Amino acid sequence: MGLSRVERVLPGTRWLRGYTGQFIVADLIAGITVGLTVLPQGLAYATLAGLEPQYGLYSAFVGGVVYALLGGCREVTIGPTALLSLMTSRHTGYGGNSGPQLAILLCFLSGVVELLMAVLRLGALVDLISLPVTVGFTSATALIIGASQLKALLGIRGGSGSGFASTVRTVIANITEARVADSILGVVSIAVLLALRKLKDIKTPPEATGGRKIVGLVCWLVATARNALVVLITSFIAFYCDQRGERPFILTGTVKSGIPDFQLPPFSTVLPAGGGPNGTSSLELGFTGMIEELGASIALVPIIAVLGNVAISKAFGGSGINPTRELVALSLSNICGSFFSSFPVTGSFSRSAVNHASGVKTPIGGIYTGALVLLALGVLTPYFQYIPKAALSAVIISAVIFMIEYEVIRPLWRCNKRELIPGAVTFVLSLIVGVELGLLAGVLTDVAFVVYRTARPILTVTVANTTLGMQYILIRPNHSLIYFPAVEWVRNVTSKAIKQHGNIPVVFDCRLVNEFDYTAATGLQMLRKELEKKQIPLIIYGSSSEVRKLLQETLKSSLLEVTNDDELETMLRDISTEGGKHELREVAIPLLAPASERSPSVVEIDDS
Amino acid sequence: MGLSRVERVLPGTRWLRGYTGQFIVADLIAGITVGLTVLPQGLAYATLAGLEPQYGLYSAFVGGVVYALLGGCREVTIGPTALLSLMTSRHTGYGGNSGPQLAILLCFLSGVVELLMAVLRLGALVDLISLPVTVGFTSATALIIGASQLKALLGIRGGSGSGFASTVRTVIANITEARVADSILGVVSIAVLLALRKLKDIKTPPEATGGRKIVGLVCWLVATARNALVVLITSFIAFYCDQRGERPFILTGTVKSGIPDFQLPPFSTVLPAGGGPNGTSSLELGFTGMIEELGASIALVPIIAVLGNVAISKAFGGSGINPTRELVALSLSNICGSFFSSFPVTGSFSRSAVNHASGVKTPIGGIYTGALVLLALGVLTPYFQYIPKAALSAVIISAVIFMIEYEVIRPLWRCNKRELIPGAVTFVLSLIVGVELGLLAGVLTDVAFVVYRTARPILTVTVANTTLGMQYILIRPNHSLIYFPAVEWVRNVTSKAIKQHGNIPVVFDCRLVNEFDYTAATGLQMLRKELEKKQIPLIIYGSSSEVRKLLQETLKSSLLEVTNDDELETMLRDISTEGGKHELREVAIPLLAPASERSPSVVEIDDS
Repeated sequence: MGLSRVERVLPGTRWLRGYTGQFIVADLIAGITVGLTVLPQGLAYATLAGLEPQYGLYSAFVGGVVYALLGGCREVTIGPTALLSLMTSRHTGYGGNSGPQLAILLCFLSGVVELLMAVLRLGALVDLISLPVTVGFTSATALIIGASQLKALLGIRGGSGSGFASTVRTVIANITEARVADSILGVVSIAVLLALRKLKDIKTPPEATGGRKIVGLVCWLVATARNALVVLITSFIAFYCDQRGERPFILTGTVKSGIPDFQLPPFSTVLPAGGGPNGTSSLELGFTGMIEELGASIALVPIIAVLGNVAISKAFGGSGINPTRELVALSLSNICGSFFSSFPVTGSFSRSAVNHASGVKTPIGGIYTGALVLLALGVLTPYFQYIPKAALSAVIISAVIFMIEYEVIRPLWRCNKRELIPGAVTFVLSLIVGVELGLLAGVLTDVAFVVYRTARPILTVTVANTTLGMQYILIRPNHSLIYFPAVEWVRNVTSKAIKQHGNIPVVFDCRLVNEFDYTAATGLQMLRKELEKKQIPLIIYGSSSEVRKLLQETLKSSLLEVTNDDELETMLRDISTEGGKHELREVAIPLLAPASERSPSVVEIDDS
Repeated sequence: MGLSRVERVLPGTRWLRGYTGQFIVADLIAGITVGLTVLPQGLAYATLAGLEPQYGLYSAFVGGVVYALLGGCREVTIGPTALLSLMTSRHTGYGGNSGPQLAILLCFLSGVVELLMAVLRLGALVDLISLPVTVGFTSATALIIGASQLKALLGIRGGSGSGFASTVRTVIANITEARVADSILGVVSIAVLLALRKLKDIKTPPEATGGRKIVGLVCWLVATARNALVVLITSFIAFYCDQRGERPFILTGTVKSGIPDFQLPPFSTVLPAGGGPNGTSSLELGFTGMIEELGASIALVPIIAVLGNVAISKAFGGSGINPTRELVALSLSNICGSFFSSFPVTGSFSRSAVNHASGVKTPIGGIYTGALVLLALGVLTPYFQYIPKAALSAVIISAVIFMIEYEVIRPLWRCNKRELIPGAVTFVLSLIVGVELGLLAGVLTDVAFVVYRTARPILTVTVANTTLGMQYILIRPNHSLIYFPAVEWVRNVTSKAIKQHGNIPVVFDCRLVNEFDYTAATGLQMLRKELEKKQIPLIIYGSSSEVRKLLQETLKSSLLEVTNDDELETMLRDISTEGGKHELREVAIPLLAPASERSPSVVEIDDS
């Protein structure tokens, strides 16, 4: 009982049950492999975020430990990612200590917002981001990140342009200043990284013998640890040159050694002279000032973080994953991380894939990764200064290049071109205006389509006949909601149908309608009054009990209502006897048959 | 042919065909009656808009003429309204000539935006404003307008608070300064106006004889022209006092005489010292400066104007009205009006009702109203200075009091409390923050509900049996759209169902689904892969051809698909023969019967 209570608070402790030698070895191998990926990525992403390299490592060890205690999907590895680094970089350009301080506060606040999302069950907000929007967003982000690395890759110095277009322009304008050694190192590194990545695809046949098997294993190891390998080799080259008194490459420079202090996230900062957004004098920012500076990022970073995390845990964990628990794990990774000077973190798709491929058994693998990172911080930092910046850029570029997706375009183009629009809007606006506004615009475009469909439901208009041959207009919404924006549409279609087919009874077929709202019911009442003026009866057919209740409450006066074909026949006969206007013909029609079989005269009015 | 071409450009000219003596007399009577309403209302609404009284008359004659030429609904009368006056008043507080100049430019720009809405067919945007939101909006507006008139009604002088709360606070704080004479005049005027309004309800029986008939007609006339009567009588009282050297009431003061000059709307203005939003020095505003000052009003005033106009032409004209044509008529009323110093105008519900009750035959009645207004501008203005402000406030208050609607609450409370929320949001935020934000928030709340329903479609989960007694889970969305936000929901419900009912085949019933999007199709593919791991087949039942095409394109590998019950039976039998896991029982179920009758074990999972 005691244990199960612990397990409820720290679900990760259940992994310890039967955590045998075999599991320990598997997790250890996976943890170290992931560590060899996160070390170079962490250094690179910190630079991308506009921070000193050690912050990437500070961000890389807390998430693994917290997730091991709280998470539910063994493959997920939490740490710095290209996307969040890019979003953080918006706030790190003011110089002095303000960069890391704002980044750490953003990490803390992201965690708090994520916790709020978990408590208020707002995690479902990411449901609003459709696949085309996600693809447009990540593709644009990949391009922006790739472009931002071009300068370091080519050894071009100078202030970083923030947008995609300005970055590309800066690179092109300064292309003559590109340093040959850096460029060669960068391009070769990318080529090697992409080639090594291909090594993974060489499959060892299961019946392979010893030697063949070892070759296969080595290939896999080299492919998986390729980032670390490239960084190691290029650093050796730089170190060797340095010892000979040559410095052909721009190097990372001193990386601060040691484990970061455990301390509260900063709640004030100073924007140094010339760095602030408002000009030249140095500016002290209190907590509210920092909040203002972070602005929309406080909401957007968590949403992007959750989106990434949900995608990963879905891909690896299936629907067995408890989303709230994942959200809490992510939230505490950020909150705890901010006490160790971390910038915002989330699940990394590439490292989770490495983790999976390395045969991880439990999230405890993340603890081994964390230990390796701490070890590196304590011991390896003196050597990090020799890492060429071009090599780190190569690591980033060869990672984000696979975030550009275009496979989604073909099926959409074939089936549903309309869905390309939100994706295109997101992609283009992300590149031109910024990723936040691009994402927002994409989601709003999607929402606009949803609202449009609700406002313009597909209405099937059929001129049908009773068994006695009496004609009537059957108007059937092929839509389950009749809500306020659809009222005018329904009225217009009905008016048109009457103009076309004459003053015969109108049957409004509610059998596919689940929900009616008050505005729509009032609109139906107005329609009925209008038809009454022309002496046309309006019959409601097959409304559900809730719909009927609302209609009766709104329309007050007694409604003409029928629930099945027999009642419809009877009512239409009664009407024709009273009115005596309609002649009788004998055409039987099965009402539930498809519209095309139902009647000799079928008019389909569709808004598409 | 020549005439019909004229008629196409100026549809109003068709009214001239057979415009006989009887029609002329009817229109003349109606036009003059409406004129007797618009004269006091125009003076009052101009004051409400923060302008000198004559601007109300400037706004009252162009609309009628333009609408007569272009409009399609004889009852509609276009001119100043309480709502638009309130919205205009936001920009008239800076003093000098800036008030009228900004108001006139707003009128011009409103017309331009309305023309754009007509060209881009954006008139349908008003479909997004549901009835509860409309009611919340107009009720809040009525309260704000009513409160804003309290000061004039009670003769309290001093700067006008803009919001509802601040106005009420000002009135209460200064209640001791209320002037007795003004208060009595105001309250008595309101009482008289409300009493005279009741006179309308006295119906003369159709079989009434001469004397009775004349009494009935007089009652109707007095009731209809009550605003003019009250203003006339109170002015006489004020004039009489003035002749005796007494001034017990605050009077309207000099109203500029004469027809306004025909001139371009102003494209620059000067905010005088102390009046501008930025402090004390006077500020010259160019066109862009004026646009900035007008801000959101440039979009909101037209939307509110169109909303009002649509409501009126719907109420009187039914669905025979061409909305684009109405929009063009409204647009040109504003554009042309701005050349005669008009502030924004739209259809007035109260005056249209007067028009209707006066037996108007064609929109030409509006021309007679316009002529009367011009006559008043030329001849009557010297007398307007004696109109007590309290009387004008009484005219406004007794008009807007009927804009407060609460009848809508009861049916909503009974049937669909959820729909009260957008209305309440609009009402409360309109009062607290402002009518524009209130309206926007209401619409967004409504849209959020639409998106929510799309994200959480009602799914019916049934455990059904084949004729051979083989169990399967039937998941049926009772919703016509399966779009991106619903994917997770469908997967979660399916997972829960499997956990509850065991690893039996899952049938996804698409018979009520019209549309699937790519994200949803991809989600279904992920669901299928997940089920495959558990060796559970996923069968798609009854998808439409478009849905099938998308699913096949997305899911690539061959789908298990059936189109009717027989095929489903066969497929399930084949699966069970292959798998050999399921025992046979004999329970026949009709699949199209309601879920409750279909199977002994029915589980309905509903999100409500």
